[in-house]
Amino acid sequence: MEQTAISQSPIFTLGELAEWLGTELKGDPGIRITGVGSLEDARPGDISFVVKPRHTSRLCDCKASALLIPPALGDLGFPALIVPNPYLAVARVAQLFDRPPTLASGVHLTAVLEEDVQLGEDVAVGALAYIGSSSSVGARTRVYGGALIGRDVLIGEDCLLYPGAVIMDGCRLGNRVIVHSGAVIGADGFGFAQDEAGRHVKIPQRGIVQIDDDVEIGANATIDRATFGRTWIQRGTKIDNLVMIGHNVVVGEHSLIVAQAGVAGSTQIGRHVILAAQAGISGQLEIGDRVRVGAKSGVAQSIEAGRDMMGLPALPNRDFFKIWALLKRLPEMNKELKELRANVAELQAALKDKTA
Amino acid sequence: MEQTAISQSPIFTLGELAEWLGTELKGDPGIRITGVGSLEDARPGDISFVVKPRHTSRLCDCKASALLIPPALGDLGFPALIVPNPYLAVARVAQLFDRPPTLASGVHLTAVLEEDVQLGEDVAVGALAYIGSSSSVGARTRVYGGALIGRDVLIGEDCLLYPGAVIMDGCRLGNRVIVHSGAVIGADGFGFAQDEAGRHVKIPQRGIVQIDDDVEIGANATIDRATFGRTWIQRGTKIDNLVMIGHNVVVGEHSLIVAQAGVAGSTQIGRHVILAAQAGISGQLEIGDRVRVGAKSGVAQSIEAGRDMMGLPALPNRDFFKIWALLKRLPEMNKELKELRANVAELQAALKDKTA
Amino acid sequence: MEQTAISQSPIFTLGELAEWLGTELKGDPGIRITGVGSLEDARPGDISFVVKPRHTSRLCDCKASALLIPPALGDLGFPALIVPNPYLAVARVAQLFDRPPTLASGVHLTAVLEEDVQLGEDVAVGALAYIGSSSSVGARTRVYGGALIGRDVLIGEDCLLYPGAVIMDGCRLGNRVIVHSGAVIGADGFGFAQDEAGRHVKIPQRGIVQIDDDVEIGANATIDRATFGRTWIQRGTKIDNLVMIGHNVVVGEHSLIVAQAGVAGSTQIGRHVILAAQAGISGQLEIGDRVRVGAKSGVAQSIEAGRDMMGLPALPNRDFFKIWALLKRLPEMNKELKELRANVAELQAALKDKTA
Repeated sequence: MEQTAISQSPIFTLGELAEWLGTELKGDPGIRITGVGSLEDARPGDISFVVKPRHTSRLCDCKASALLIPPALGDLGFPALIVPNPYLAVARVAQLFDRPPTLASGVHLTAVLEEDVQLGEDVAVGALAYIGSSSSVGARTRVYGGALIGRDVLIGEDCLLYPGAVIMDGCRLGNRVIVHSGAVIGADGFGFAQDEAGRHVKIPQRGIVQIDDDVEIGANATIDRATFGRTWIQRGTKIDNLVMIGHNVVVGEHSLIVAQAGVAGSTQIGRHVILAAQAGISGQLEIGDRVRVGAKSGVAQSIEAGRDMMGLPALPNRDFFKIWALLKRLPEMNKELKELRANVAELQAALKDKTA
Repeated sequence: MEQTAISQSPIFTLGELAEWLGTELKGDPGIRITGVGSLEDARPGDISFVVKPRHTSRLCDCKASALLIPPALGDLGFPALIVPNPYLAVARVAQLFDRPPTLASGVHLTAVLEEDVQLGEDVAVGALAYIGSSSSVGARTRVYGGALIGRDVLIGEDCLLYPGAVIMDGCRLGNRVIVHSGAVIGADGFGFAQDEAGRHVKIPQRGIVQIDDDVEIGANATIDRATFGRTWIQRGTKIDNLVMIGHNVVVGEHSLIVAQAGVAGSTQIGRHVILAAQAGISGQLEIGDRVRVGAKSGVAQSIEAGRDMMGLPALPNRDFFKIWALLKRLPEMNKELKELRANVAELQAALKDKTA
Repeated sequence: MEQTAISQSPIFTLGELAEWLGTELKGDPGIRITGVGSLEDARPGDISFVVKPRHTSRLCDCKASALLIPPALGDLGFPALIVPNPYLAVARVAQLFDRPPTLASGVHLTAVLEEDVQLGEDVAVGALAYIGSSSSVGARTRVYGGALIGRDVLIGEDCLLYPGAVIMDGCRLGNRVIVHSGAVIGADGFGFAQDEAGRHVKIPQRGIVQIDDDVEIGANATIDRATFGRTWIQRGTKIDNLVMIGHNVVVGEHSLIVAQAGVAGSTQIGRHVILAAQAGISGQLEIGDRVRVGAKSGVAQSIEAGRDMMGLPALPNRDFFKIWALLKRLPEMNKELKELRANVAELQAALKDKTA
């Protein structure tokens, strides 16, 4: 199948962007915007953004053609779109200009597709990629070079599977799922029974991984398949690099799991939860909706919805910081304790003296 | 070489399973068992299992055709095999039904084998896999698609090397070794000398990794090659995803190293050791047999056999939990200390008054 | 293009090595040295090394033909080169004998090179490797089997890209850069804005990763591309396995980042910094030159140059160890506090009695 290159960044006028965002415009609506850049890196034609007033100091060297700014900032001498949340606006505008890494539609000559593979419209399969038998890939999904997909895998529409991503047999991905390079979806869970001699007898891992719409999985992250049933990452959740999700874990919708965090087997994570970097959650727990766990924290007990936790083992944030402040006072407390003992001994002696 | 598909789950009667396990049977020995499932996921034909009495509440909706149960549970109204350790029994029975992911014997047309590669009987080498020169792969081992094996590598019989696994030059794997996707066996150890200007001069890493029989290595784990000699993972040890094993480490038999844990260079780990998730062990230490290190703990000193350690730096479990309980009492202790100071000051004043 | 094998370890006389190192020789300058080994593993023909006096006890079984020793050790009965820093000397001598894993120059028949790829002199591209369009690879660089390089990538001279390494579109590597297997350079940074409903809106990551000369990146490490601009690893820095470097991070020259450590987005790390294993650094911080962060420590605030930090959150080493010592005294302190309360109550009663 022949492949033809696609890629060509679009151009919008500032007026078009204002209309599309439904927001106020200051300046010439005819200014042509060809991209997005930070205040430091923007080139002429780029639209940039200011989130906080103190960032305006960087404006003097800024080469951007226009800005996204919050109402509070007033007139900065730049053509501008006034938006309530510049960070969100820049994400949306940058998405307008964004194109996934170029990969021509069609199947590269060196890709290997086994029997009964179903490809939707405009699917692209890159060089040296592999798709096992009876798997199905939805319309416009891009399987980059060297990605490896097992058999009986279902992949939705508009997904991006980056070079070297691995999706093992039987796993299911929704639409608009992004899997970065080196991520492994569906390796065996870590399940063993011990025999009488303390040897580890493997419990075959026969379940799958299900990943719902709009989930993103970071580079070299691993999501293990369930022992039975499924490991399940629900809609809109974003998982960073080198994260480990154990077998039979469920992660609710719109949660964030930051780099190098880990969740042990069978734990249930709620919706809109944030696990900060290098956090660890023990197995078989329930973590309520909107819980936030601080970086490097270790959670060994279930957590009610809405709580912020921190530490090792994790405590409510407020308790953690109170204890932490006192920890730094420990040398002082130790000294005071010593002085008190001397004072009390003195008092005892004096009183004894008195009563003698 | 032509490839023919293999896969076809077996069927056993309940009576056959009872005989094979050497255990008591309650119910019809002719019931046909076609698979294994959890209480929630079991389908008709599956055998399921109950580990704890409180799990029996899930039985009412269970579709399993039979159960593996401990003697204490009595009659649950299901056909059942009575076993001392249901968790171990389910592992063994599930293994009866288990088949590795389908991969036809023979070498896929797109696999690359360099000169002098030796393949045992019934070896399977998948699409786009690579085996370097003078390497040898034992009978029935399956090298899945995209796995990369260097030169002068020795791989035993009945191994599974999953898609994207990497085994570097000169490494040696025993029999029944499982290496999951993205695991890297034999990358360079992290060894540098500093020159006079504080620059890091690489110490070439010329040793190998040796992995003994029945070891399993998790997805995206890394086991570095030795500087000289070997990094050595001994028989029966199971290593989870994203674990890091440094150069010249020795891990004894039947140990467990859970996800995201790390062991620094030249440390010796004993037999039947458990390193829980995200634990870290410094270099050049000796960790005795049957030591258990808690999740997220950091070990900076050698540990005698049989101890349970916890914390950062790790302490004996008992000390850790005593200190942890007192940490939570720190605000109280601080308050008491303040009150005592006031009381003592009062006493001093009173006594001074008295003696005046 | 035909490929021809290269590999043949060199031979030096002890006299040649002495001259090359510019150092004193004890023994026969004509001894032929064919390799390097540790005291335990050295074979006849190897030169070995002694770093500390207590290691001389291992000499009796040593089969090495010569030693690298510090001046303090005197005559050990072995032919020897006297060097101020044996560890540095062994690195340099071992480099003399070292050869990267064999890979014939030229492009393997099964490698895929897209349009407009520029290859320098004596470049080697292994089996099943991929290089995207408009990328350039400098002289003598070795791209091992299964390595995946995107489009518009610039790679310098004498680099080693090991099997399964991934370099994404637009990234730039200097000379003598080593990227180990499974490392992912240039995956998207973890950047999202939240919309009104708490959904995560992806901020497209349009920057690159720049890696300067003499950097080494460990197996399965991930270095994310910048949101805008670049993520930048400067000259001579060595990064170990499973390390995570977030978007827009800058790591200064000659730093060491040990296994499983992580640095969050936009943090600036100075020169000659050491982040020990499993350390974590929050985003948007400045870590000064020569800072050392202990294993498993968590850094949430910027650190001035030259400081040693430890703990979670990290404190200056001295404070950390003082607090740590007192933590272990907490049970004792608690007991003393209880006794003091009893004593003070007694004194109060006695005084009241007295004054009654």
